Amino acid sequence: MSQLNDLQEGTGLADALAAMAAVVGARHVLADEATCERYARSTAARPVRPLALVRPGNADEVAQLVSIAARSRVAVYPISTGRNWGYGDACALGAGQVILDLSRMNKIVHVDAELAYAVIEPGVTQRQLSDHLRERGYRLWADCTGAGPDTSYIGNIMERGFGHSPYGNRLQHVAGMQVVLASGELLETGFGHYRQARAAHLFPYGVGPFLDGLFTQSNMGIVTRLGIWLMPQAECVNHFLCSVPEHADIEPVVDALRPLRLDGTLRSILHIGNDMRVFSGAGAFPRDAVTQGARPPDALRAQMRATSGVGAWTVSGALYGSHAQVAAARAALRRALRGTAGRPAFVSERSLRAGALAARLLGATKAGRRLRARVMLGESLFAMNRGVPDGRFLAGAYWRRRGGVPTSFPDGANPAQDGCGLLWVSPVLPLRGSDMLAVHDLARSSFDKYGFDLFATFSMINERALGGVLTVAYDKEDPDEAARARACHDEVFGNMFEAGYIPYRVGNHAMGRLDPEGDSYWRTVAAIKAALDPAGILAPGRYQPALAAGLQ
Amino acid sequence: MSQLNDLQEGTGLADALAAMAAVVGARHVLADEATCERYARSTAARPVRPLALVRPGNADEVAQLVSIAARSRVAVYPISTGRNWGYGDACALGAGQVILDLSRMNKIVHVDAELAYAVIEPGVTQRQLSDHLRERGYRLWADCTGAGPDTSYIGNIMERGFGHSPYGNRLQHVAGMQVVLASGELLETGFGHYRQARAAHLFPYGVGPFLDGLFTQSNMGIVTRLGIWLMPQAECVNHFLCSVPEHADIEPVVDALRPLRLDGTLRSILHIGNDMRVFSGAGAFPRDAVTQGARPPDALRAQMRATSGVGAWTVSGALYGSHAQVAAARAALRRALRGTAGRPAFVSERSLRAGALAARLLGATKAGRRLRARVMLGESLFAMNRGVPDGRFLAGAYWRRRGGVPTSFPDGANPAQDGCGLLWVSPVLPLRGSDMLAVHDLARSSFDKYGFDLFATFSMINERALGGVLTVAYDKEDPDEAARARACHDEVFGNMFEAGYIPYRVGNHAMGRLDPEGDSYWRTVAAIKAALDPAGILAPGRYQPALAAGLQ
Repeated sequence: MSQLNDLQEGTGLADALAAMAAVVGARHVLADEATCERYARSTAARPVRPLALVRPGNADEVAQLVSIAARSRVAVYPISTGRNWGYGDACALGAGQVILDLSRMNKIVHVDAELAYAVIEPGVTQRQLSDHLRERGYRLWADCTGAGPDTSYIGNIMERGFGHSPYGNRLQHVAGMQVVLASGELLETGFGHYRQARAAHLFPYGVGPFLDGLFTQSNMGIVTRLGIWLMPQAECVNHFLCSVPEHADIEPVVDALRPLRLDGTLRSILHIGNDMRVFSGAGAFPRDAVTQGARPPDALRAQMRATSGVGAWTVSGALYGSHAQVAAARAALRRALRGTAGRPAFVSERSLRAGALAARLLGATKAGRRLRARVMLGESLFAMNRGVPDGRFLAGAYWRRRGGVPTSFPDGANPAQDGCGLLWVSPVLPLRGSDMLAVHDLARSSFDKYGFDLFATFSMINERALGGVLTVAYDKEDPDEAARARACHDEVFGNMFEAGYIPYRVGNHAMGRLDPEGDSYWRTVAAIKAALDPAGILAPGRYQPALAAGLQ
Repeated sequence: MSQLNDLQEGTGLADALAAMAAVVGARHVLADEATCERYARSTAARPVRPLALVRPGNADEVAQLVSIAARSRVAVYPISTGRNWGYGDACALGAGQVILDLSRMNKIVHVDAELAYAVIEPGVTQRQLSDHLRERGYRLWADCTGAGPDTSYIGNIMERGFGHSPYGNRLQHVAGMQVVLASGELLETGFGHYRQARAAHLFPYGVGPFLDGLFTQSNMGIVTRLGIWLMPQAECVNHFLCSVPEHADIEPVVDALRPLRLDGTLRSILHIGNDMRVFSGAGAFPRDAVTQGARPPDALRAQMRATSGVGAWTVSGALYGSHAQVAAARAALRRALRGTAGRPAFVSERSLRAGALAARLLGATKAGRRLRARVMLGESLFAMNRGVPDGRFLAGAYWRRRGGVPTSFPDGANPAQDGCGLLWVSPVLPLRGSDMLAVHDLARSSFDKYGFDLFATFSMINERALGGVLTVAYDKEDPDEAARARACHDEVFGNMFEAGYIPYRVGNHAMGRLDPEGDSYWRTVAAIKAALDPAGILAPGRYQPALAAGLQ
């Protein structure tokens, strides 16, 4: 941390923590061994030990803590709920930072039923918002991700994560942020800095430069509140599934779906997963059938496909609207997929109920098992489409975990605490079948080389791009496998980057690789950072490649 | 211009212009009387004389000009095509600036038919892009505004203007900007700063802080190129019109439409105009029937409504999709409007042809005249919905012009050069009928007081907000009327601001009023500006309220 002196290890730190305790209360400043060890845990097998954990209760306290940090030259690293799985979890970029844990700030400040938005704090989780909306009878749904019910909305938005619904491009559904700056000032973006404003959470841009983007994937400030738009409940939801038998079959399907995504027939974020992605969500790694340190052989994979009735690729997404609108969308999808190997299947609540009944009638037959598995998946997908997060989609993180999924799964799932090994590479690519296969094949060669199963998901994150999520799941208890996992991640990351498939988001362990040429974008970011945080006390290294490289 | 010394009036300026001429060629540096006078003209009746006009041909030249400006401490003010009607036109915030006219930079760099986007320069106009797409047979439409065919796309996007189609929230359909910074550096946002990136114009956010918003409504840099997403041609377009007879009837209509905008049935930007807005688009001010310096009396207004068959308010928008999707949307609209005074009418290409035929058959009867006027309006709206800009929507700017619309209208329309008087107040409000009437009524009292007809349009700029455009059209040749117009604008602006209806965009003449309390948002903007442009040479005062106040 070139910008910080080394005071923090000495009395400076003790004084700073004492001052922070005076702000938040002593019980919210934790510097004991157990806490520091717990917050050091990471799915990246790269523990980063914090100096302490401080838990403010409101934005005003955050501002005071930041001022103390600036005075004491102690770096602070904000986390929302610390569930940035596979990208750094709750860890700072480097050791010697104080974690500002914002999870106590979990107020749902306001819900507007008519204009369909909520104002929330960083500690608000997917489950909490979902429960709140249902319990109070709001006819609104919040977008969900598969990262588990206990993840923070704001945390995910700050990393520009995406979900499944038409509101899945989450940053596009944010209006009005409250941000604590390194100066200790409280900034309101959009119209919110005008106290009398009536559209503070209705129109993100405000008047003057639109700043929201600056606070995402950055360390420019600490977002302590924002307005998030909610989706009015649809009269009708159909889940759309489309499987293809063979690997190459997916290319024309992607190209056939693109026009429907472009023309708005498909408004939600479709996800295209390979067979391994589907298996990893439904069961545990077949350790007994696999040589130690190797990936499942192709023959086993083919057998798993046959047993479960899963194709090489599965497209999954939802259609929303009136009954007539959904029917029109179904017809458009059927028409578009004609001539491809993809046979669209539409799951409605009614067909799900019928399927559950049929599965019971078929009992323990092969067909019954298949159908039951499908019904269960359909139920979870349906819940998620309708704003109810489901922990089962985190199962992939436990795929190579030695003990499989713990008894606490899925409710209390915490891959970092449960010892899961998980690294992601997340390239963005043009929404074209050929690019999708190119990215898959490029990754595949490294995964094969290092002995990992390639789980791949490609999500239609907007109308023109796919966001790939390539998962390296590994056994963290096996040091050799952990080293191979890191090598595999690094090689895939490098190959993707060189091939022009730049990640939409990176883990702490990869931030140092984002600026190989010292380009003017990163120089501009650095100039803004220097203006807003001259002492560099906020999350040093976070999306600051030059500094991050030195911390890794 | 506190940050600039006064060199520019002396030899410093001459040297700077000579250096600039060496970059762009002497014929592209104009400091003659006629040019300076021409570029000083403004619909605001507040001429701001530039020092000179310099016309670079590419981004590299822009960068060199900026470096010269920084060295010489001459302020430069970029315009795209200088058609920011009613908000400052081609004028800088204050005198003593050199206009950088980017209109020569009018390359359509690239069009991607498959992924539906174009890469354009600031000089590219609505007409040019529209023609380009049609002539080359691309099955793509560009969003259009009513500001006339010769307005710049980039210029409008930089001011966060909005159009009519589902792509009307224009900033949301931009990916990848090229920006010349005050340092003379060329910045590429999104993924574009990685030369090998394959999704540079497909995914706006890139990786790291998302900077695009910073360059809109600001003076942080000069955008010299960007990727703009285009809309795939729809199988079916219907224009939707819905008129209500009486003023108060519109409130329940707005509330009935809101759920359809929220749920995505209405994907395009609907515009709700009052009767005066419709008249001003279709004819000239009835000067003979109106007392000098007064607005048309209510009785005349009622008579004009009756003659033309125009209601107190008219909702106008378009439905896009397959035939089935448009039919479903029509049904949803009819259902939603049941029980209100609004009777939705849907215009298809077929009904437009039938209407034209019927109008011819009805001839010069009252019904025939009405129908013909409707058909002509329908044709222009249809063209605009389908990416063909139409100058006739600029007619409102000529409403009070003493000579009416000139012979050059609509093709060569240029309200600033044609001597139109035009000021806008553009408050943002919650998408609710009650707010719409509150804003209208609040404005109305000032318009009445100062003797102006209130043209009001409220546009559903997103799913939750209305953007009001309240037009003060005035006779610029009448100094008394010009003074009253300015007083009316200022009063409406102030009243809206105080009532919490903050503008989405302001004219040069109002920028100084944006920061009455010295709030932290504007302090943050100033800190970023100081970091990126320490000498303050780029467009001083532009969305810089403290500085602007001193220049006005």
